[in-house]
Amino acid sequence: MIRADHDLAFMLQYENVAWYEQGAVRILDRRIYPLRTEFVTCHHHTEVAQAIADMVTQSAGPYLAAGMGMALAGWECRDMPQAEASAYLEKAAYTLSHARPTTVVRMEAITSACLEVGRKALEEGRPVDEAIFAHTLEEINNKYLRIDKTAAYLAQQFPAHGTVLTQCFGETIVGLMLRQARAMNKDIKVMCAETRPYFQGARLTASVAYDQGFDVTVITDNMPAYAMSNDMIDLFTSAADAISCDGHVVNKVGTLQLAILCNYYGLPYFTTGAPDKGHPTIDSVKIEMRDPSLVLEAMGVRTAKEGVKAIYPAFDITPPHLISGIVTNKGIYSPYDLNRYFTD
Amino acid sequence: MIRADHDLAFMLQYENVAWYEQGAVRILDRRIYPLRTEFVTCHHHTEVAQAIADMVTQSAGPYLAAGMGMALAGWECRDMPQAEASAYLEKAAYTLSHARPTTVVRMEAITSACLEVGRKALEEGRPVDEAIFAHTLEEINNKYLRIDKTAAYLAQQFPAHGTVLTQCFGETIVGLMLRQARAMNKDIKVMCAETRPYFQGARLTASVAYDQGFDVTVITDNMPAYAMSNDMIDLFTSAADAISCDGHVVNKVGTLQLAILCNYYGLPYFTTGAPDKGHPTIDSVKIEMRDPSLVLEAMGVRTAKEGVKAIYPAFDITPPHLISGIVTNKGIYSPYDLNRYFTD
Repeated sequence: MIRADHDLAFMLQYENVAWYEQGAVRILDRRIYPLRTEFVTCHHHTEVAQAIADMVTQSAGPYLAAGMGMALAGWECRDMPQAEASAYLEKAAYTLSHARPTTVVRMEAITSACLEVGRKALEEGRPVDEAIFAHTLEEINNKYLRIDKTAAYLAQQFPAHGTVLTQCFGETIVGLMLRQARAMNKDIKVMCAETRPYFQGARLTASVAYDQGFDVTVITDNMPAYAMSNDMIDLFTSAADAISCDGHVVNKVGTLQLAILCNYYGLPYFTTGAPDKGHPTIDSVKIEMRDPSLVLEAMGVRTAKEGVKAIYPAFDITPPHLISGIVTNKGIYSPYDLNRYFTD
Repeated sequence: MIRADHDLAFMLQYENVAWYEQGAVRILDRRIYPLRTEFVTCHHHTEVAQAIADMVTQSAGPYLAAGMGMALAGWECRDMPQAEASAYLEKAAYTLSHARPTTVVRMEAITSACLEVGRKALEEGRPVDEAIFAHTLEEINNKYLRIDKTAAYLAQQFPAHGTVLTQCFGETIVGLMLRQARAMNKDIKVMCAETRPYFQGARLTASVAYDQGFDVTVITDNMPAYAMSNDMIDLFTSAADAISCDGHVVNKVGTLQLAILCNYYGLPYFTTGAPDKGHPTIDSVKIEMRDPSLVLEAMGVRTAKEGVKAIYPAFDITPPHLISGIVTNKGIYSPYDLNRYFTD
């Protein structure tokens, strides 16, 4: 069983770690990881909010950091009278949840729960920081258990000996699927498409797999067909930024063409993640177009001359007929039967 | 009609230019082009050989540079007695043709022809440098005419309004196909896959098209399926490093998966270039594996951590059923009927 509080070293390999300890929150600086493993130390919850705004932590990281920031706020108000402390926590919840404009709704769910836990501790005269920290740990442990179940269902599909192709960075699922594969005594190698323009595959996924002791090979995004045509890949898997209930997968641009190549070469493609009730069909999904200038540079160096244009669709959409299965914490679903997930 | 001697400015846009003028050969430095347009000036034919060895010019460039270097050698021996001059030229031919180990055979064909032209000029008392320069110009003009015919056949396949996807850098064919398209009043936009790991698409092809006044968009190598699925591409074309007589195309890695995507989306893929008599079937082609460390960096910056491996297949092989046509100076051939090219 995975417990974040017992597995900080393991978490560090693949998580956007944020960790509260009496009077401070340490946040892994993902802007420079994995080239250097450094932490930003925040001594006040407003510094945690600033670190979130400054993209010190990304992806799932801000949600954990917000919980740890609430624990820190609990420490800050430890000598205040109850009413004042309660108001202080409420203000902190607002500050932390509004650190980034686009994630306010999901952040509020987290800080509200922390606020409730904190107020209960206040009423009962228990240390607020410890109560919120324990709650946040429980939440992340529950998340890990869900992802670990998904990882187990996915690893069962891996061949006894073979190579798994990844795209972009599935964060926790990458570390856990490899841990599960090892527990199942599967002899797995990892091939990572580098995933332009940000190189998440080369920078992050490859690092996670390497740190766990796996044989890892990076290929550029124009090499998967070469690798497949030379029998170098047995299975492709990716996470998803969204899965619509009608079985379309929205994920980092490039996923679609890898799925088409798998279809051409007869290889399975498994997506991990739960269907999203907010998207009954794919029609409600709008692909975010990011700053095209990022496509015209690589690792900060300009590639094309001035005047040349670019596009940067953050994601693409893979239709259900190209997907072998949606792997969830409840098992593997057909992309054509995803609504069953909500009643299982 | 294109004549190299009248179109130096045009050549500069897409050629590996090398140019003889009394006592010197100027070679466009392709190691820094297009970021800067600078020339290496050689005052002795051995400096030309050194420039070829140092990769100042690449692809088709060294063959032109060798001819210009022979003209320079003709200048160097202008005051020698005939027999001494003849021996001098022969030695120069050896030096230039052996500048790079892997291209000796094709280089020897060029320097031998120059040597013959030079000796004839010696016998007839004409200036040797001028004779070899005129011969080299004629050769490149003939080459341009051949490529321009190919370009015309290709541009005829372009839609009246639409977007052409490129892969890597087809050198002269890129400039000429766009010039032909414009002459045919076709309203063409260009989309260039950036072509990792060297970014030839972003650096070179995009520059050529932009300099000719076309609307050019660069995409990373994981975006073609996104672009095709959004109806942003009408036709894909690439040159070839080799075309076997049984219709397989060997080209920069990534070509294969673009051809598969074209097949999936119902888009035509045209390859330019003549079949290679040296490869009656694809079985004689061995894919060159280059230094994998180049895949682990981008524009000179490391992307993955130490210990992570990589592969760097320089080329991949596209089978005939994925190719709409092989476009040559004699017309467009089915990949299943290429031997006819040699008798037409």
